Amino acid sequence: MTPIPDTNLAERARFPLWARDVLRYGDTDRQGHVNNAVFATFCETGRVQFLIPLLPVGCSFVIARLILDYRAEIMWPGEVDIGTTVLAVGRSSFTLGQGLFVAERCVASAQSVMVLTDDETRRSTPLPEALRARLVELTAG
Amino acid sequence: MTPIPDTNLAERARFPLWARDVLRYGDTDRQGHVNNAVFATFCETGRVQFLIPLLPVGCSFVIARLILDYRAEIMWPGEVDIGTTVLAVGRSSFTLGQGLFVAERCVASAQSVMVLTDDETRRSTPLPEALRARLVELTAG
Amino acid sequence: MTPIPDTNLAERARFPLWARDVLRYGDTDRQGHVNNAVFATFCETGRVQFLIPLLPVGCSFVIARLILDYRAEIMWPGEVDIGTTVLAVGRSSFTLGQGLFVAERCVASAQSVMVLTDDETRRSTPLPEALRARLVELTAG
Amino acid sequence: MTPIPDTNLAERARFPLWARDVLRYGDTDRQGHVNNAVFATFCETGRVQFLIPLLPVGCSFVIARLILDYRAEIMWPGEVDIGTTVLAVGRSSFTLGQGLFVAERCVASAQSVMVLTDDETRRSTPLPEALRARLVELTAG
Repeated sequence: MTPIPDTNLAERARFPLWARDVLRYGDTDRQGHVNNAVFATFCETGRVQFLIPLLPVGCSFVIARLILDYRAEIMWPGEVDIGTTVLAVGRSSFTLGQGLFVAERCVASAQSVMVLTDDETRRSTPLPEALRARLVELTAG
Repeated sequence: MTPIPDTNLAERARFPLWARDVLRYGDTDRQGHVNNAVFATFCETGRVQFLIPLLPVGCSFVIARLILDYRAEIMWPGEVDIGTTVLAVGRSSFTLGQGLFVAERCVASAQSVMVLTDDETRRSTPLPEALRARLVELTAG
Repeated sequence: MTPIPDTNLAERARFPLWARDVLRYGDTDRQGHVNNAVFATFCETGRVQFLIPLLPVGCSFVIARLILDYRAEIMWPGEVDIGTTVLAVGRSSFTLGQGLFVAERCVASAQSVMVLTDDETRRSTPLPEALRARLVELTAG
Repeated sequence: MTPIPDTNLAERARFPLWARDVLRYGDTDRQGHVNNAVFATFCETGRVQFLIPLLPVGCSFVIARLILDYRAEIMWPGEVDIGTTVLAVGRSSFTLGQGLFVAERCVASAQSVMVLTDDETRRSTPLPEALRARLVELTAG
């Protein structure tokens, strides 16, 4: 699965959905900046705030692919604003686009391929119509 | 609840039970050493390896108090050996003693007060006899 | 070193200094609540926000002891308010008292013994007068 | 930058370099499995074990892109074996390929684009010949 080209993931105006994390001292590593793996946590913050209220009963969202483009270091202390949008919608999966911002600066952008799975079969299941409609609506952004 | 005086928690020979964690790059912080909160994670590693096989059905172990004495910095890379023993056994709670070691050096010692709780009532419940016997046996160490 | 008895660490009104952390999905563990080691991170958030602006040049604050009393589970999502005060001031060390709150509920209280160390000798060094005065002022709270 | 097609990143035999992490209780999240962001930490473990001994004086390795393909859940307790190889070598950057394994099962594969930067200019700098030769040698794997 190839990443979806999107030249706008570094622009705040691109994102209809926003979440925020507060940097923690322990997010830093011995290089003095926020550790690269914590960027994946910030992406998760934006994903779960958006997706958990939309989760169909008896189902889970599973991440299949994460593509993280690092653009700048994050220095403690501070906050990270996480913008989220929908880039594509498939039958049982969809792709989110995200931008991580410290003040006006884009420090990373990301794409996540999410799959809806049935908790019993643990296999992918088609997106229910209401969820699908909400996701498609956001792709227009 | 006062910590139990124990002059031996810095000595490897004191501990009958052992676990091991591998240091991770992200465990470090901007001061260049392993972040102080990760020491609590190492203590947990020793606790759960020991306690989970002993957990009575329908119950949980809940930590009520953690006392962590920091003795030396931990520098990445490396491994941490976690020694665990039992210091005291009560009706529904008990106190573990732990030592964290990098090679021969004790880098921290800890006491954890653990309470057995019933998953339904979410309240403390007496230690079953088999668990109690195992804990008491270890206090002899 | 025995913990300082303090019956007030569960009361919001006790604390002159405040910091805030946002819970992260990854703070939870397989028991469904925020992992116990993350409480140590919340304590650190309150400590560093207060102490780093007060740090004398060429020195570091080193944590010597952390005592964490767990009072209630923390459930994601939400925020944690971290109240901090000073309980005691010594020659080169001092003891902080902290309370962690989710809304009005105290979920944990903590005491941290902090030592000022000289970066060259890596040994403890007396608290400079300005720092000492600020710490003593806060013990009155 | 498009990910490099590589059908072999799920096969243990593909990787000349190996590292190992021990799962921690706190790696799990409320879904009961190891949190997705921790997979990025495992990738880092493999990268730093390989790269830090090769780091030219006055330089740093900076991650520019991480592509993580999640193939299976990781359940605590256990260990993760991290296989690393080199997929491509450029003028001042290179691409690592990695596989994460629990016993014989591939639970994730990853590609990381790494850039060598000069610590003074903080800009990319050409790979020194010795480093380049070592990286190229590994692409043959």
